[in-house]
Amino acid sequence: MKTTTDCIPCFITHSLNVAKLTSGNQDHHKEIIRKTLSMVADIDFDQTPPAMAKKIHNLVHRITGVEDPYVRIKDESTAFTLEMLPFLRHEVEKSDRPFETAVRLVIAGNSIDFGTDHNFHLDSVHRIIADSLKQQIDLEAVGLLERKMAKAKDILYIGDNCGEIVFDRLLIEPFRKKITLAVRGKPILNDVTRREASMSGLDGIVDIIDTGDALPGVVLENCSQEFKRHFKKADLIISKGQGNFETMLETDRPIFFLFKAKCSVITRLLNSELGSLQVIGENIRK
Amino acid sequence: MKTTTDCIPCFITHSLNVAKLTSGNQDHHKEIIRKTLSMVADIDFDQTPPAMAKKIHNLVHRITGVEDPYVRIKDESTAFTLEMLPFLRHEVEKSDRPFETAVRLVIAGNSIDFGTDHNFHLDSVHRIIADSLKQQIDLEAVGLLERKMAKAKDILYIGDNCGEIVFDRLLIEPFRKKITLAVRGKPILNDVTRREASMSGLDGIVDIIDTGDALPGVVLENCSQEFKRHFKKADLIISKGQGNFETMLETDRPIFFLFKAKCSVITRLLNSELGSLQVIGENIRK
Repeated sequence: MKTTTDCIPCFITHSLNVAKLTSGNQDHHKEIIRKTLSMVADIDFDQTPPAMAKKIHNLVHRITGVEDPYVRIKDESTAFTLEMLPFLRHEVEKSDRPFETAVRLVIAGNSIDFGTDHNFHLDSVHRIIADSLKQQIDLEAVGLLERKMAKAKDILYIGDNCGEIVFDRLLIEPFRKKITLAVRGKPILNDVTRREASMSGLDGIVDIIDTGDALPGVVLENCSQEFKRHFKKADLIISKGQGNFETMLETDRPIFFLFKAKCSVITRLLNSELGSLQVIGENIRK
Repeated sequence: MKTTTDCIPCFITHSLNVAKLTSGNQDHHKEIIRKTLSMVADIDFDQTPPAMAKKIHNLVHRITGVEDPYVRIKDESTAFTLEMLPFLRHEVEKSDRPFETAVRLVIAGNSIDFGTDHNFHLDSVHRIIADSLKQQIDLEAVGLLERKMAKAKDILYIGDNCGEIVFDRLLIEPFRKKITLAVRGKPILNDVTRREASMSGLDGIVDIIDTGDALPGVVLENCSQEFKRHFKKADLIISKGQGNFETMLETDRPIFFLFKAKCSVITRLLNSELGSLQVIGENIRK
């Protein structure tokens, strides 16, 4: 999807948040915000919103030298959710509809997003899980996804955030033999890279590849040959998170998007509500 | 007060909001946001935040030709609050502490601010009034203000927003013979100008002057000679709203600021909370 004017204030807020994460130096903050403003003034609205997030991170990296501003937040999220994993597994096991419950939980995990909500607190995850188990969800799409996952031979599962990826194990592990997990190629926001996939216990469970890119989404022309090959040959792609949705919405590959709707640009597009659980399948998009 | 980096995202959001108020044309929105971003990239952080609001309005005016984007909102606010005036008067009359109640209500009126909250709804005013009658307030400062107003011979009352100015009548009318009311010189945000002061029933009640400037605050060097004269000779100045506070905080004139705290930059400065009632007197500031 293209960038809208409504995305612009978020870019600026985001730049300031990343500046504060990387440095206590007010002069750095001012330099980062001035250069972000100049850069965004020249924005190409035809690009997707995550493309600008990548540019902002590159800018902050150049000015502060910090390559992974979210590393502490990412590691806290991983530790926090690993501790929750037995509880999450129990929720699925005791459910009458374990697949649906797993889907609800992996979408709940998508709320662990410090990029769209700088003030997100891990403590709120318990409440979000409880809500997600009761919230409206498209049961028809969930049923279709279950049948597609059962039938598929080669699933590409594209992860989103740290912490969330621990939740994703609920959906990945039952299908592990036919899943390849894709993560980001380099640190960006609190998105999962190979490092945190490994810390989240996914080594040895599934094959892990990365996009080769530091974009919080997938822009195919920027991706590694390995990623492109998997993207083209998979008979089912599962995409987690709003950034992946924003960048792959127009693909013609057989894809399901699982995410929480996090901003008004998306809720208007989907005619939905903030915080709603989104299961958007290939058939529904067309 | 100086502008902080935390003010920057608000400028950008504000620019987009004003763009939408003035035009349904997406190309206008894009031009306005691009030019705002470029302008803000060159910001002088030593200037006060309201100085940038004025620049953004000038920019929108140049691009769209619309001089007063808030005119409909302003007139709705005036009509809405004029209808409430008998109820507001009754609240003061039935109070055991009528001066304190009037102060609480004129600060409640300051919540009618479409500049800091584009989604403000007039319907919420009733709840805000009920809250304001119970909220924590600095009673010592209120008592001091009461004594100062009783003793003063020449009060300059500097208004802020439309709608709010109708509430201000509760505090202006009992002291009308010694009050000069100052309003903005030109349309800016939903701030009160001579036009809306007149529509709010203040003609003939007090002498009305204007700042001569279209800034949502008071930067003395931009103001008319008439305003400067009154500002210098008044033995008490009452300043309404956060924009006036931001621009006159450092004055050495005998001034009381009455406003609701509306952003985190201000709540950090005052060690206070969002939505708190502020009565900041000359003695307290020093």
